[in-house]
Amino acid sequence: MVYLVLVFVCLFVYSLQLDFEVIDLSHTIGPTTISLPINPAFNFTVLERNFNERYRIWIEGNWFGMSEHTLTHVDAPAHMSMGKEHIHEIPLEKLIGPVVVLDVKRKVAMVQEYGVSIKDLFDWERQFGRIPNGAAVIMNSGWDRRYPHPYAVFNTRNISDINTYRVPSWTFQAADWLLTNRRVIAIGVDTPSVDFFTGKTLPVHRRIFRDSVIALEGVANLDSLPPHGATIYIPALKLYQGSGSPTRIFATFPKC
Amino acid sequence: MVYLVLVFVCLFVYSLQLDFEVIDLSHTIGPTTISLPINPAFNFTVLERNFNERYRIWIEGNWFGMSEHTLTHVDAPAHMSMGKEHIHEIPLEKLIGPVVVLDVKRKVAMVQEYGVSIKDLFDWERQFGRIPNGAAVIMNSGWDRRYPHPYAVFNTRNISDINTYRVPSWTFQAADWLLTNRRVIAIGVDTPSVDFFTGKTLPVHRRIFRDSVIALEGVANLDSLPPHGATIYIPALKLYQGSGSPTRIFATFPKC
Repeated sequence: MVYLVLVFVCLFVYSLQLDFEVIDLSHTIGPTTISLPINPAFNFTVLERNFNERYRIWIEGNWFGMSEHTLTHVDAPAHMSMGKEHIHEIPLEKLIGPVVVLDVKRKVAMVQEYGVSIKDLFDWERQFGRIPNGAAVIMNSGWDRRYPHPYAVFNTRNISDINTYRVPSWTFQAADWLLTNRRVIAIGVDTPSVDFFTGKTLPVHRRIFRDSVIALEGVANLDSLPPHGATIYIPALKLYQGSGSPTRIFATFPKC
Repeated sequence: MVYLVLVFVCLFVYSLQLDFEVIDLSHTIGPTTISLPINPAFNFTVLERNFNERYRIWIEGNWFGMSEHTLTHVDAPAHMSMGKEHIHEIPLEKLIGPVVVLDVKRKVAMVQEYGVSIKDLFDWERQFGRIPNGAAVIMNSGWDRRYPHPYAVFNTRNISDINTYRVPSWTFQAADWLLTNRRVIAIGVDTPSVDFFTGKTLPVHRRIFRDSVIALEGVANLDSLPPHGATIYIPALKLYQGSGSPTRIFATFPKC
């Protein structure tokens, strides 16, 4: 009986549509925005912020420009796999799914250049069950608290030399196991790259894109999500022939 | 009994998370992208689309730049109301809600510069019930089929003169009635502006922003939505001090 009442309460709440938690997983794009030094910097230009004579009212309007691969963003398979999907070709259905959060904060506290391992995936499944079909699987290393300070984000004193960057990421083995044995839509990190910067061959990027899966980089605020049970939305801008896009990534989970 | 079974089926389907329809309400941002002539044009610059010598793989990467108020986008209250919310200050909760679609296609077939009227709102409510709290209310004039052709979108032969643009939009009276009598999060159009271009005072914009409500412009594909029952997501880029943002607007509705 109690269960039935709960069912009806849940349905009623669902019928109100918005009674779920919404978690913003995106960094703010602004003057402190970090770009890789190989890319032109973020540009925000005020076009109008004044009393407009034509309309006789206050008007604000701005121009902004950025690399596709800035801050919280998606990498499309075309980024590093010739002939694979550009960002405008990925349907929204492939940009929504259950989100699996791999908490490796304790390990990163010991080894800053920690790599998500197959064992981390096994440990998660032992605790929470099989990684669901269509999931986005994201490393939570606690790195989002280092934003927007570039020295902290890239963990180096020499921002101009990409070879000195030391950040946690995925091992090739874990990404390969996940793509081979589970059906996922995205592999992600709260750091700037799904590959270590110290590698020279970007094996995780290439492995992901080979399967037409997307990468998520610079995801924020993962501590606010449960390890499973939430739904992630990755509404990338539909840039024609884009190899990626800055994206207001967010997640929802039912309140009841 | 049948009802109970239905309830359980619905709950089961909901538990699968992704078993809802997803409708993309956004135009593609690309070479054909339309900007108002008062704004700098959309810029898409290939940074890399070649075999990369450092990593010895194919890499694509691009830069893009645009006015905040381009194509499918959000206007934040700060756009025309000094001291009101910029786009980065609007929480995601205020960017999600039920979507009400006002179909005025037949009226627009008679009068191209048609204005949504209070009667249109009354007619909708008589048919579908009271406009729900937290709704985004959007005019569907059929105008999205005119994109991406600027002469058709602005309905003029003289693109450089904004005074010649003739497009359907909202009357001030209808927007004012809606904001005064219902609790909405957004007022929108499938055309480039929530005000007629022939006016000189942008009264609908100003009325909307006075209540800290957002405007949606250039919404696409509204024919794929039911008039009510869907949920709209308006995940604007979190641009610091932005007066608006290009946005991958989409909607979902339950399959059962």
